Parts: sequence; structure tokens; C-alpha cells
Amino acid sequence: MSAKPSTYPGVVEILLVEDNPSDAELTIRALTRNNLANRLVWVKDGAEALELIFGPSADPETPINHIPKLILLDLKLPKVDGHQVLERIKSDPRTRMIPVAVMTSSREEADLLRAYKAGTNSFIVKPVDFDSFIEAVRELGLYWLLLNQSPAGDANPLGS
Amino acid sequence: MSAKPSTYPGVVEILLVEDNPSDAELTIRALTRNNLANRLVWVKDGAEALELIFGPSADPETPINHIPKLILLDLKLPKVDGHQVLERIKSDPRTRMIPVAVMTSSREEADLLRAYKAGTNSFIVKPVDFDSFIEAVRELGLYWLLLNQSPAGDANPLGS
Repeated sequence: MSAKPSTYPGVVEILLVEDNPSDAELTIRALTRNNLANRLVWVKDGAEALELIFGPSADPETPINHIPKLILLDLKLPKVDGHQVLERIKSDPRTRMIPVAVMTSSREEADLLRAYKAGTNSFIVKPVDFDSFIEAVRELGLYWLLLNQSPAGDANPLGS
Repeated sequence: MSAKPSTYPGVVEILLVEDNPSDAELTIRALTRNNLANRLVWVKDGAEALELIFGPSADPETPINHIPKLILLDLKLPKVDGHQVLERIKSDPRTRMIPVAVMTSSREEADLLRAYKAGTNSFIVKPVDFDSFIEAVRELGLYWLLLNQSPAGDANPLGS
């Protein structure tokens, strides 16, 4: 499920950006149980997330690498934090339409407001309890991957 | 559940903007069954929706009337259509953070792209089948009203 971000070859349906290995494993387990973890790529910091989407160069003329159906984004991340990843994705017309669900341990109002201001599609506080965490990821996966219609999946709908 | 939009007195948790009475009734029934229809206001056209949120004047200095936790927005609406309602809400910093889920019969790519470009949080195609419709509204309600953290509900977090 992991590879060098900028060279990841297949279609990415879910991009999970999470530095905490146990949260990531729990998330992947909950999605797998519900057959929702197809084409999931897990990256561990914000720089890898940006490289996977935008490619290694920051050139706005370079085609976008991947348009996932959903980005599951933690906020406290090494190298480039989740707010900056979100702001970059939502300020580029080529990637603005990718659904992003922030999933964070933060209950701080400032994080919530900053994320909504940047244009997050959704903001979920990670449940502390194991079963509630699994259930939240299940609901989240069913909602964004089965019920919601995402611009991704089409032949480059966001390009040019 | 219905009242003159600009004078609706209570807190509005869900604003349902839907001109088709049977779709509206089905939506309300599905939410009610799951105890999610508290403080729901149903309006039948885009002009009423804008009046409920922004008040009768279009003055950007006038305080916002209502910050729902979720706006469920049909696209084909009388007077002011759903795209225009969405564009108005998402272009005003006072209301941009209100979660909006478009719920439409349209399967047209142009509608989907226009809605995401305007900043919709989610885009749902109404299931044709009765049971699937009820189930979709249930999932949608659980997701946005229980799992998602919305900026609404706080003491005017979007104001001034």
C-alpha cells in the first residue's frame, strides 16, 4: 500500500495522510473490512502527500499525478502540516474539487475554523474509543466512496 | 416546520431546500425516523433559502440570520436555482463554512463540476428507488449531523 509518492503507478482512490501508525492501521483495517480500501495509499507526512498529488515539481504547468476520490487528512503532520496540505490543495483549481475529510485528534475551535476556511469538505474528530473509531471510519468510507459523487474517477475532469 | 424564512425564530439545524413535495416529505420522514429532523426548516425555492440565511436585505453588513449545521440543497429550483444559492453561500465569508450537500436528480457532469467548483461539500444523486432514497438520507443525516463537526452551533463563530 505504500510506494514512492511521485512514482506511485496505479489509480489512487483513497489517499490517507497520517503519521500515527496505529491510527493508520486502524483506519485501513476498518476500510478493508467494508471492502473500501481498494487503491488506498498511505503516506506519513504532508510533503509526501503533496508529492503524490502534484508530482515532484511545484510547476503549475505539470499535470496532476493523482485525483483521489477522497483524501483523509490528519492535521498534525511532520514536514508539512495538514493545514498547509489542505490550503495547497484547495487553492489550486486543478485539485480544489478533490473531497478532503480532515480527521484529527484536535478539538480546538481554531483548527476547525481554519480547516473550513481553507475549504475542507468535512471535519471529523477521531473517536478515542476503539469501536467508535472503527465505526466512524466505516461511516466515513461508506459516505465518501459509495454515496457521494466525486469528480475523480473520470478521465481527468479537473485537467486543463 | 415551515415559516416565513426571514422571520423564522428558532435555531435552524437543517435547512432543506427542495421544491418537490414528495422528495421533501421522504427526506423529512427518513430524518425523523432517525431522530435527525430536529430544527429542520423546509423551503421550496432558492429565494426563500437565501432570505432565511441572509435576511430580507442583501446588505453585507446585516448579521446573518441562520447558520445551519447542514444545508440540503436541490439544484433545480424555482426563482433562484440551487447553483446560484450555492455560489452565493460559498462566496460570502460569513456563510462559506456552512456544510452544503447538494442532493439532485441530475446525473450531468456539468452540474457536478459546477457545484464542486462553487465549493459544495458533497454531491449526492437522489436514488430513484424508495428504499435506497430513505437509506441515502439516513446515511447523509448521520454523517453530517452526528459524525461531522460543523462550525454552526457555536456562538456565531462565523460572524464579524
